[in-house]
Amino acid sequence: MEFTVQQIAEVLGGTVEGDPTLGISSLAKIEEGQAGSLSFLSNAKYEQFLYTTQATAVIVARTLELRQPVRAALVRVDDPYSGFTKLLEFYAQATRTGKRGVEQPAYLGESSEIGPGHYRGAFSYIGENCRIGANVLIFPHAFIGDRVRIGEGSIIHAGAKIYADTVIGKYCVVKAGAVVGTDGFGFAPQADGSYKAIPQIGNVVLEDFVSIGANATVDCATMGSTTVRQGSKIDNLVQLAHNVEIGRNTVIAAQAGISGSSKVGDNCMIGGQAGLVGHIQLANKTTITAQSGVQKAVKDEGQVLQGSPAFNLRDSLRANSVFRRLPELLRRVDELEKAQNAPEKP
Amino acid sequence: MEFTVQQIAEVLGGTVEGDPTLGISSLAKIEEGQAGSLSFLSNAKYEQFLYTTQATAVIVARTLELRQPVRAALVRVDDPYSGFTKLLEFYAQATRTGKRGVEQPAYLGESSEIGPGHYRGAFSYIGENCRIGANVLIFPHAFIGDRVRIGEGSIIHAGAKIYADTVIGKYCVVKAGAVVGTDGFGFAPQADGSYKAIPQIGNVVLEDFVSIGANATVDCATMGSTTVRQGSKIDNLVQLAHNVEIGRNTVIAAQAGISGSSKVGDNCMIGGQAGLVGHIQLANKTTITAQSGVQKAVKDEGQVLQGSPAFNLRDSLRANSVFRRLPELLRRVDELEKAQNAPEKP
Amino acid sequence: MEFTVQQIAEVLGGTVEGDPTLGISSLAKIEEGQAGSLSFLSNAKYEQFLYTTQATAVIVARTLELRQPVRAALVRVDDPYSGFTKLLEFYAQATRTGKRGVEQPAYLGESSEIGPGHYRGAFSYIGENCRIGANVLIFPHAFIGDRVRIGEGSIIHAGAKIYADTVIGKYCVVKAGAVVGTDGFGFAPQADGSYKAIPQIGNVVLEDFVSIGANATVDCATMGSTTVRQGSKIDNLVQLAHNVEIGRNTVIAAQAGISGSSKVGDNCMIGGQAGLVGHIQLANKTTITAQSGVQKAVKDEGQVLQGSPAFNLRDSLRANSVFRRLPELLRRVDELEKAQNAPEKP
Repeated sequence: MEFTVQQIAEVLGGTVEGDPTLGISSLAKIEEGQAGSLSFLSNAKYEQFLYTTQATAVIVARTLELRQPVRAALVRVDDPYSGFTKLLEFYAQATRTGKRGVEQPAYLGESSEIGPGHYRGAFSYIGENCRIGANVLIFPHAFIGDRVRIGEGSIIHAGAKIYADTVIGKYCVVKAGAVVGTDGFGFAPQADGSYKAIPQIGNVVLEDFVSIGANATVDCATMGSTTVRQGSKIDNLVQLAHNVEIGRNTVIAAQAGISGSSKVGDNCMIGGQAGLVGHIQLANKTTITAQSGVQKAVKDEGQVLQGSPAFNLRDSLRANSVFRRLPELLRRVDELEKAQNAPEKP
Repeated sequence: MEFTVQQIAEVLGGTVEGDPTLGISSLAKIEEGQAGSLSFLSNAKYEQFLYTTQATAVIVARTLELRQPVRAALVRVDDPYSGFTKLLEFYAQATRTGKRGVEQPAYLGESSEIGPGHYRGAFSYIGENCRIGANVLIFPHAFIGDRVRIGEGSIIHAGAKIYADTVIGKYCVVKAGAVVGTDGFGFAPQADGSYKAIPQIGNVVLEDFVSIGANATVDCATMGSTTVRQGSKIDNLVQLAHNVEIGRNTVIAAQAGISGSSKVGDNCMIGGQAGLVGHIQLANKTTITAQSGVQKAVKDEGQVLQGSPAFNLRDSLRANSVFRRLPELLRRVDELEKAQNAPEKP
Repeated sequence: MEFTVQQIAEVLGGTVEGDPTLGISSLAKIEEGQAGSLSFLSNAKYEQFLYTTQATAVIVARTLELRQPVRAALVRVDDPYSGFTKLLEFYAQATRTGKRGVEQPAYLGESSEIGPGHYRGAFSYIGENCRIGANVLIFPHAFIGDRVRIGEGSIIHAGAKIYADTVIGKYCVVKAGAVVGTDGFGFAPQADGSYKAIPQIGNVVLEDFVSIGANATVDCATMGSTTVRQGSKIDNLVQLAHNVEIGRNTVIAAQAGISGSSKVGDNCMIGGQAGLVGHIQLANKTTITAQSGVQKAVKDEGQVLQGSPAFNLRDSLRANSVFRRLPELLRRVDELEKAQNAPEKP
């Protein structure tokens, strides 16, 4: 895809300074701009790059006063950042999520229904009795089990697996390879030391605007639902065990794990590789730092916890700063004991 | 699927109190029961919910004496818990694992054989010279490489990848997206700082009743076999490296990792996000708590280890409790030194 | 596949002692040799096994002097280890990566091109405008998005997903289930507490000889490229976030995670389950031990860091050794205080 500077200015309602016929084929940061790319200048501290950038064109504010000559064509708009974001979204839509129609072979269970404007990639699979809304994109190799519901505008990426009875809201994104709704890890120990699988007949519910990362796993509930509430964003390789509940607008970074039946509140942030034991609850607005291990419920809102086992951040930072000095501390205690045991000074 | 209360009573050999014609379409915990659902009461401490539940019917003991009026229909049996479990298994079988036959297109290498009663989902792939037993379920997008053996009654879920020469026993479950038998991470450093891949020609052996979690990875051996012995259960996103051996009836929780050539004994429990270095051995009945890092062999049975690096649980808990008080300890040593250096009291 | 001892000797330019007509069907370590298998003896400390091995044949040095009778046939060569490695590679090639041609159904976008000598497995998917070199192997269920470039001799394993605009060099290996090039985890917080996805329009670049592990995830850049430079080896279940850069010949072990925009130097080693925060840089030849958490840039080459938070290995080992003795240290400080507060000795 290539556009002229003039075409971009028209889309943004801006005016051109320089050659309006130049061709634009990519978007780049101003410090990484190259021939054919379009950049933007929003933050004054990057202005220096405007005079040296290799970008073909730069979106700038109408009010910007140039202090040096500029080689790039300029597109002047009211708000360069939001203009650029508009182009980013347009670009992403055009190149990555603009697919429509059905590629063959694709499998669709006879009793399933799917709304208009959808995309079904080759080798995508939809089981029986599914109800799938309008404008849903289902990429190649995606697996949708029986009786799944998916709301309008959601995207199921390549090779994601959505198991039977899962309910997915509107405008959700399930990224490539994520597994949603498989059996939880429930086994009853037997007298002979072996384990017997406990049937898991619950499901997973993802409310609207939820995002599930690539190769993440969300187990179905034993009974009832494993739930991720509206607007929460789950990163790659995260594990959500059976009967977990994640509140609204909570963010969980890559490789974190939430054990069975734990409940995370609204507007929480959980760092990468952090873990929660099972059957605990985190209050709203709790922050857990990366690699921390939470072993107890957090009852008051707005706390920040660190460490494994985790406790409050300020105390954890202090304890860690002494931890590094432990060999010195040991030596000082040795000295004190030596002095104490020394014969009295005359 | 809908059943009447009467039909359920007949399956369980129970008697009905209340309307036997009511319809049941789901199973739920007694405290979460809703119209159309069936619950059970086994533990006396939940009895209060019997009198308030919204469930249409509840399975109770023949001997239970009601202390208040009950709205739900009752199904009286000898053992409510095992009766309910029976229904759970029946339900899971009917809805999730009861598939049979072949959906097209499915790929089956000409030289491969598969027993009666199997399911092959659309887009499933079976290579050459495979021997697959009776009643094996192979879900859509599953990949079975060449010369793989799978015992009767095993389930290979959607998008699981079983690489060449893997041997899987009877009644195993490999969950969605798991990767079994890819090349291990073996590279020989070269004089110029680069690495050369060491060919990995071994395989993976899963004995009977093994479960491998969603998106878990089990690498093949360099030579010989990476082995998971009978009855062991491996959770989601676990990594088992090349030449690892896991004993019988061992449980490994989500996101744990076992490095190359390490051997874990029978009846061990390894917590989530825990890790073992390579080339060590854990005695039978070892427990490793979540997020721990084991750097040394564990020789005596029945030990519990915690921490990174891990040592025995009791000492670890004690050390952690002092860790939190380190700033205080430092202050006390400061005070002691100050007192020591102070001029003698007159 | 079965070969005679004589055939193997001819391939290796060796001479046979014993029956040259014996059949060989597998390769094994000398201590695990069985009927039909071929082993090798390179390290003198394994010589004892030569006299007891069950292997049908053993590759030994021309100069080896036998101290006891040997049952196995011998193949004498100049360098047994490199001879055996040659056979390993031949075996792996013949059984695992020797596939050629196209299995149907396979999907190939009309505008895409792929060089001679390739393999496309059944249910593999290649989008539009891809340029794929000679001798590339694309296993079943692999997904290749639009405009992807892949250099000659690379292998894309079963169910790997390569998203749009990814550039893969020559002789790379992307293992089963890996996800390369999906959107990074970028969300802009909104005034109402919700998050809005920031369009991610960059790509992933894997240079030549890179290996990406099974079920690993490599996110595309927001703009620009997430990059893994020549010869680096990334293990299973690793997470590389958006705009990460990994230098040349760096090795990252399983389940490690590198947060957004961090840069790892050349010839680094990062242990399993280790993590880096975002926006930091590691100098060349840095080593991070398993489970460590790096929170700060490492500026000097050749350092080894341990712990979470990580600091230099020697100090970390010392601090950890005192950590275990913390309860004792506390007791000693208690004693010192008691002595100090005791009434003066008479």
